[in-house]
Amino acid sequence: MALLSVLTPVLAVVLCLVIGFMLVRSRETETTSTPSGKTEGAKKADFRPWVDQDLQDDTEITAEEEEDGDWADSHEEEDLLHVPYSPPRYPEETMLQRSKDLYTLMNQRRSVRFFSPEPVPREVIDNVIRTAPSGAHTEPWTFVVVSDPDTKHQIRQIVEEEEEVNYRQRMGDKWVNDLAKIKTNWIKDYLDVAPYLVLVFKQTYGILPNDKKRTHYYNEISVSISCGILLAALQNVGLVTVTSTPLNCGPQLRILLKRPANEKLLMLLPVGYPASDATVPDFKRKPLDDVMVHI
Amino acid sequence: MALLSVLTPVLAVVLCLVIGFMLVRSRETETTSTPSGKTEGAKKADFRPWVDQDLQDDTEITAEEEEDGDWADSHEEEDLLHVPYSPPRYPEETMLQRSKDLYTLMNQRRSVRFFSPEPVPREVIDNVIRTAPSGAHTEPWTFVVVSDPDTKHQIRQIVEEEEEVNYRQRMGDKWVNDLAKIKTNWIKDYLDVAPYLVLVFKQTYGILPNDKKRTHYYNEISVSISCGILLAALQNVGLVTVTSTPLNCGPQLRILLKRPANEKLLMLLPVGYPASDATVPDFKRKPLDDVMVHI
Repeated sequence: MALLSVLTPVLAVVLCLVIGFMLVRSRETETTSTPSGKTEGAKKADFRPWVDQDLQDDTEITAEEEEDGDWADSHEEEDLLHVPYSPPRYPEETMLQRSKDLYTLMNQRRSVRFFSPEPVPREVIDNVIRTAPSGAHTEPWTFVVVSDPDTKHQIRQIVEEEEEVNYRQRMGDKWVNDLAKIKTNWIKDYLDVAPYLVLVFKQTYGILPNDKKRTHYYNEISVSISCGILLAALQNVGLVTVTSTPLNCGPQLRILLKRPANEKLLMLLPVGYPASDATVPDFKRKPLDDVMVHI
Repeated sequence: MALLSVLTPVLAVVLCLVIGFMLVRSRETETTSTPSGKTEGAKKADFRPWVDQDLQDDTEITAEEEEDGDWADSHEEEDLLHVPYSPPRYPEETMLQRSKDLYTLMNQRRSVRFFSPEPVPREVIDNVIRTAPSGAHTEPWTFVVVSDPDTKHQIRQIVEEEEEVNYRQRMGDKWVNDLAKIKTNWIKDYLDVAPYLVLVFKQTYGILPNDKKRTHYYNEISVSISCGILLAALQNVGLVTVTSTPLNCGPQLRILLKRPANEKLLMLLPVGYPASDATVPDFKRKPLDDVMVHI
């Protein structure tokens, strides 16, 4: 007891240090979770970064967080010269016709998992990729286009291996005796068959000329928007794809494709002509009123 | 000292409780940050949901997480009848020309903040919105199209109020004396001027007929992809927009627009013709080789 009473102040100090450490740690956890937990992070006024509301040309916020905690004074864009902009303007009838035509085209789009091995002109693919970022000028992404058969096959092996783990882990007992039946779920032969695999890497941060890191805010939203335009561009030339987000394969595929550490795999899109016997699930579309409200 | 020694066990117990509480709390923080931090979450095998890798028709994973912790046996899509699919196929020369034409069109796209108040035919807007989800059939989103001037003005007030807070909080001392100069940063008169405001709400979960909730996996990626197609559709008819993600305004705008609790505001897009004197920053585009790698 005497020993204890002597140790009391020591004990108190040690425990205070432990608590202090944990407080700091829990705060760090919150802070580091902010970049991916955008919405949640944004709610906390204390952690709000200096960002403009606008996704500059739909790609990123170029605010620069300096290491001393100071925010950059101004928005990169504000320093740029503004130039007049007058895009093509169509008569109302033409607008209406164009809006109908694109709707008709895009309404035929479906995700396809059955590809023809036929080659597709490389120049078409280049133009499609070129189209995706469009108005964007400081793109926080890299599109890796793979046509080399060996690399495609290595990608397939990585994806299938992880997919098998995913399925086995989640199957539970009721499925474990019937592997053959669900094996089709993780076999992705289209990764060999499709003439191109497009792997979209988002850059979570960029490197400035002075070697400092620049956070790419909203990089996931930006890259996904770009992929939407990519899907439109593929449909426009009669090619098909299926957007997939391979679980847990990102790091392995990043290393295989020699992408730097600031890039993360967001999507993998096999691209090609559909197989002549391709099928798609017989979905029924939602009517417009279910997805649109007019006020 | 005697009092202290008597209190030592009590003190120890209290401190242990505090530490225990903080450990739990810090663990909760990590767990709750997982849903938004998809990539991070996906790395932890324990938290992997039962999802197919593919974003079904680019919109969502329809896996159903039942409340008892069991995962649904099968994938909704697998139960659907498959039907043959053969989209239009073009000769190579036509493909090449179409890919160039769309690139040329989309390459002219820029984010515009200066709108003309001229009305835009409602039917064109409907067709544009209809185009956005395209191949998708169980869309986890709602597009709210606002043309009512009062509602537009209320939206502007909410956005500007939050934006002013955002700027003031981040300005620090060096700016605080020069409010007038940066006021332009939070004044968004285009929210009154543009004939339409399109507010894109993502549904973080859906409600099944049996009133159970169904998680919409990848809802942010899916909605962003859809917005990419929306941008293409707007450019296709000669309209302009700027994609913005209003910070901290989501809950107020959701209530104003009477959207249900499972919807979160992801983007706000003013839509209209550009003002005759519209300008855009004089960006230089990155060359294709900077954003594309061929393997």
